[in-house]
Amino acid sequence: LKLTILGTGSATPSLIRHPSAQILSHENSIYLIDCGEGTQLQLLKHGIKISKLKYIFISHLHGDHYFGLIGLISSLNLARRRESLTVFGPKGLDEILTIQLKYSDTQLHFKLDFVSIDTNTTNSILETSTLKVTTIPLKHRIPCSGFLFETKRAVRNIIKSKIPIGISHLEIIQLKNGEDVYFSDGKIKYKMKQMTFIKHDIQKYAYCSDTIYDEKIIEQIRNVDLLYHEATFKNDLVERAHTTYHSTAEQAAIIAQKAEVTKLLIGHFSSRYHDLSENLQEALPFFNNTEIALEGNEYEI
Amino acid sequence: LKLTILGTGSATPSLIRHPSAQILSHENSIYLIDCGEGTQLQLLKHGIKISKLKYIFISHLHGDHYFGLIGLISSLNLARRRESLTVFGPKGLDEILTIQLKYSDTQLHFKLDFVSIDTNTTNSILETSTLKVTTIPLKHRIPCSGFLFETKRAVRNIIKSKIPIGISHLEIIQLKNGEDVYFSDGKIKYKMKQMTFIKHDIQKYAYCSDTIYDEKIIEQIRNVDLLYHEATFKNDLVERAHTTYHSTAEQAAIIAQKAEVTKLLIGHFSSRYHDLSENLQEALPFFNNTEIALEGNEYEI
Repeated sequence: LKLTILGTGSATPSLIRHPSAQILSHENSIYLIDCGEGTQLQLLKHGIKISKLKYIFISHLHGDHYFGLIGLISSLNLARRRESLTVFGPKGLDEILTIQLKYSDTQLHFKLDFVSIDTNTTNSILETSTLKVTTIPLKHRIPCSGFLFETKRAVRNIIKSKIPIGISHLEIIQLKNGEDVYFSDGKIKYKMKQMTFIKHDIQKYAYCSDTIYDEKIIEQIRNVDLLYHEATFKNDLVERAHTTYHSTAEQAAIIAQKAEVTKLLIGHFSSRYHDLSENLQEALPFFNNTEIALEGNEYEI
Repeated sequence: LKLTILGTGSATPSLIRHPSAQILSHENSIYLIDCGEGTQLQLLKHGIKISKLKYIFISHLHGDHYFGLIGLISSLNLARRRESLTVFGPKGLDEILTIQLKYSDTQLHFKLDFVSIDTNTTNSILETSTLKVTTIPLKHRIPCSGFLFETKRAVRNIIKSKIPIGISHLEIIQLKNGEDVYFSDGKIKYKMKQMTFIKHDIQKYAYCSDTIYDEKIIEQIRNVDLLYHEATFKNDLVERAHTTYHSTAEQAAIIAQKAEVTKLLIGHFSSRYHDLSENLQEALPFFNNTEIALEGNEYEI
């Protein structure tokens, strides 16, 4: 799993940060999480091939998280995409997209599937051969959902010194997939545990933006390898964070600490903050492995 | 009248040009014409104060001409705007805006007036104390309208050597507004024509994007000081221009020549063209006073 940050700003437009958007990459597929205005330019700028995009996840219907979606869909269509695209998002998003396609008289050349998510409960919304995605109910001013991404199995590599002469390509794949190999009579031929080592364990990434400080999410994100948690404000505006259903950097770090995650990325910064070093300083005492999410940066999970 | 170009691109997103948007400035008011995705960032980048914006004109409902509008309206609201805002655009735009405001649970702090324009006929849609705006029916794939902006009167300055002692501020304003000044008994006190000179005559700006080559617009734009005409393609794609209801640089120049305008700006370039010098070369033989519209440039009309 690899995360590329495209936008770390919040609602007020800014020349120093773009609105929320990020790309999760896994085994030759990419997943787009949120899509603020201008996301398609950010994708272009960072050389991300949108043709590989199959799934889009929209957390909620505040503009800084989805106003770029209709533009991206229109551009995919202009680029003559044929492969289907699935958008997960709160109820209402399909209506918004449909009406805009109607008035521009746009006939899509690809199938656009919309999956409405229930933002009140935890639901498994996607399971591919390699990845599963679950919603994380978040508390915000309008229905809002985070997303938990988990790889389905550890990535195993063969221990080279143990490769026997005559092993077939198919048998190697079986072993890498975590399966033992049997003779046709049912006797064991190669033991997976003896011949492979775990290169990457199961990986977990949790995306939590936008949300008030809410300990209810902790159990679900416990021990994730990477947590992205919004940190719109600093402590001077903790009251404002509360009334607007946002979090501070310190609150994000407390959640990370309590959930015993490996690493925390904070983002969704108010446009009032230019230098973000103080934001980071407020988080570090509570969770030391915290970083500021930087646009264009890639984070290996 | 002063025109600031914010975007000269067309539908396919590009890192070298932004989608359509421009600002017309006149006597401390600004008018926004089209509003492609990212226009609010272009406004920020070019230091244009959106608080002065009262009227927005949307030519048609292809995304590269309006996908930035909902973001701009949301940002005006976040900035606690109180003054009313009027949006002129084709039928459907109000529905699109309303549904997006509904799902984000946005209560506007200002009055948003939407005026639906009839794109089939020429209509006077706005008349302020200083400016009038008329629609120009354009032929495109969906309902589309250009806009003709005309200042209502010449701008007069006082001839300094003729300022009499004792003239009041109000009398100077009357003279500048093109009115004679009378005594209370009805006798003439100051003759406007003797005491002022015309600094700027009535000024006219015509915006025509997007459109197929269409001579029907010529009468309406005859003798304008500045014509912005789309020129999506070069001559090598004249057939494509025709089938997609766009124009070539040469066709834009022929319209300018036939309409005897003072100056032509061409824009709305396909993203396939990086260097635009050939586009200009195709226009110049037909209309010599042609310029490529450049983002960030200001054009005095």
